[in-house]
Amino acid sequence: MQFDSLDDIRAFCRELPDGDAGAADAAARRQQVLTKPPGSLGRLEELAVWLARWQGRAMPRLERVTIAVFAGNHGVAARGVSAYPPAVTGQMVANFARGGAAINQIAGVAGADLRVVNIELDRPTRDFTVAPAMDADEFLNAVDIGYRTVPPDSDLVAVGEMGIANTTTAAMLCAALLGGDAGRWAGRGTGVDDAGLARKRAAIETALDVHRALSGDPLRAAAALGGRELAAIAGAVLAARQHKIPVLIDGFVATAALVPLARLNAGALDHCRAAHVSAESAHRALLGELGLVPLLDLGMRLGEASGAGVTILLVRAALACHAGMATFTEAGVSGAEP
Amino acid sequence: MQFDSLDDIRAFCRELPDGDAGAADAAARRQQVLTKPPGSLGRLEELAVWLARWQGRAMPRLERVTIAVFAGNHGVAARGVSAYPPAVTGQMVANFARGGAAINQIAGVAGADLRVVNIELDRPTRDFTVAPAMDADEFLNAVDIGYRTVPPDSDLVAVGEMGIANTTTAAMLCAALLGGDAGRWAGRGTGVDDAGLARKRAAIETALDVHRALSGDPLRAAAALGGRELAAIAGAVLAARQHKIPVLIDGFVATAALVPLARLNAGALDHCRAAHVSAESAHRALLGELGLVPLLDLGMRLGEASGAGVTILLVRAALACHAGMATFTEAGVSGAEP
Repeated sequence: MQFDSLDDIRAFCRELPDGDAGAADAAARRQQVLTKPPGSLGRLEELAVWLARWQGRAMPRLERVTIAVFAGNHGVAARGVSAYPPAVTGQMVANFARGGAAINQIAGVAGADLRVVNIELDRPTRDFTVAPAMDADEFLNAVDIGYRTVPPDSDLVAVGEMGIANTTTAAMLCAALLGGDAGRWAGRGTGVDDAGLARKRAAIETALDVHRALSGDPLRAAAALGGRELAAIAGAVLAARQHKIPVLIDGFVATAALVPLARLNAGALDHCRAAHVSAESAHRALLGELGLVPLLDLGMRLGEASGAGVTILLVRAALACHAGMATFTEAGVSGAEP
Repeated sequence: MQFDSLDDIRAFCRELPDGDAGAADAAARRQQVLTKPPGSLGRLEELAVWLARWQGRAMPRLERVTIAVFAGNHGVAARGVSAYPPAVTGQMVANFARGGAAINQIAGVAGADLRVVNIELDRPTRDFTVAPAMDADEFLNAVDIGYRTVPPDSDLVAVGEMGIANTTTAAMLCAALLGGDAGRWAGRGTGVDDAGLARKRAAIETALDVHRALSGDPLRAAAALGGRELAAIAGAVLAARQHKIPVLIDGFVATAALVPLARLNAGALDHCRAAHVSAESAHRALLGELGLVPLLDLGMRLGEASGAGVTILLVRAALACHAGMATFTEAGVSGAEP
């Protein structure tokens, strides 16, 4: 295992690998001389420089793009917090395998390799309203699965998840680590009704009481209040940092999965971009807490890396412009008048 | 010519071809049974239904996607309203032809055919601060060029432009047809400095005085205060309506080009979507006036259909999901609990 203990993760997050400032500077200089007013491609320019910084190449590439979707089940589902039964997690994983889900279609359009990893779907985490969802070993095992899912030669990784009841888990982590009551973080997820939303909030409030001592320890909170697929997402993001791979974060659950890392080190997500802001009500506030500015705002709320997958297309457009455009000199185009 | 007189355009806009409600309804019903919570793909679902409505096919297609970029020159450039000299319009058209511009790279990623049409670049419109920019025949000729540029069998058309000084022209049309002074509509375009911005506003204020009588006549205003590439964009959008082709509108100039049509008939742009909101300061307000909600907000301000080109990628993702996803029944996935 990459991390044998919570302390190993803490140590990694104290001494995070950094991006390549030289490559980023070279990419930014190139953007200044391409045949367009400087800055006029907006965030596409920023994406090109970001790729350069984290790939360590002034001319980045997108030959191997990986979409990693992790699936897990949640004991708290028994509290009636979701509109769908827990069996849907496994049914959707089967749908991914047969190519019938949204992310299969999006991965095809985006030219990405889809890796779906189900993590002990027949062994849900414990219901955190009564006991810690995972112990440290269970948590580390899920982190390791996520870490090993990322091909070290990926040029870009998009992370997402599938897990009935996991917006409850995500809201739980946010409430424990960022403060605010259940009402701030719990939304309708897949479309729970008013009664279900009330049960969701009650479960979170109960667990906040039960586990109050954990809020100062991000990793212990991630184990006791999180989920296997959330831990795997954190593991994948740590692997990407180790291997210098830029990351696109999907929606509310994927973002919440990274709060423990951000609490360990405010720079832990510097190699990541928020792909989109989802329609799940608390996502915008969560992104704000983490200083992430989403690239898309399309009212999506599906998870399974669907928003991050669509955003790969923007990154491809950004790189195509960066790599393929002529400079003012090459094209014989006059610059701005002095 | 499709339109021999301004009255011909007025007549077309009184009796606009409508979309196919049956195809749209069928597409919307399909979205309800695909393996995702209903609505969870957000605006991607809306795009699929929009394609269905305007293509008249419950299962739309994107085999032939056209990007139409129109280029023109502007007499008002002599007023010092742009950061770049007018020669850049032609230089950039040459850059398009050689494949060195942003839109060439974006068209490649988006799988679109790029058509660049330069309209009498060596004969700028007249400076509208002293005379009508175009007479009715010149305007109709440009509309016709735009109309004929759209292949009738296109599945989607993206419209954009290139023309030094044309954010001045666009702001001019907005001020004349939507009200408000030059300060409301004039922004920095390609990056004009404070003195240039002051000259831009002064030119618009002068022309508002000179041509005040035209504000009640959208088409006469479009001739006297517009530009050839703007007229061509309007022509392309009329052709798309005639041939039942959905349209993606690029940025501030492309949107302003369509204000005259929207003034003739509030439903004239129903087959269009605003691809993005640009960084040009007045674009957001203009979209609001027209009831258009942009799909992207990436701080782009390049023109040349670059924002619309990137948005084609979103439409492709939307169609891939619509066409390729399994239904709940096909996949054996449980629906929401009652």
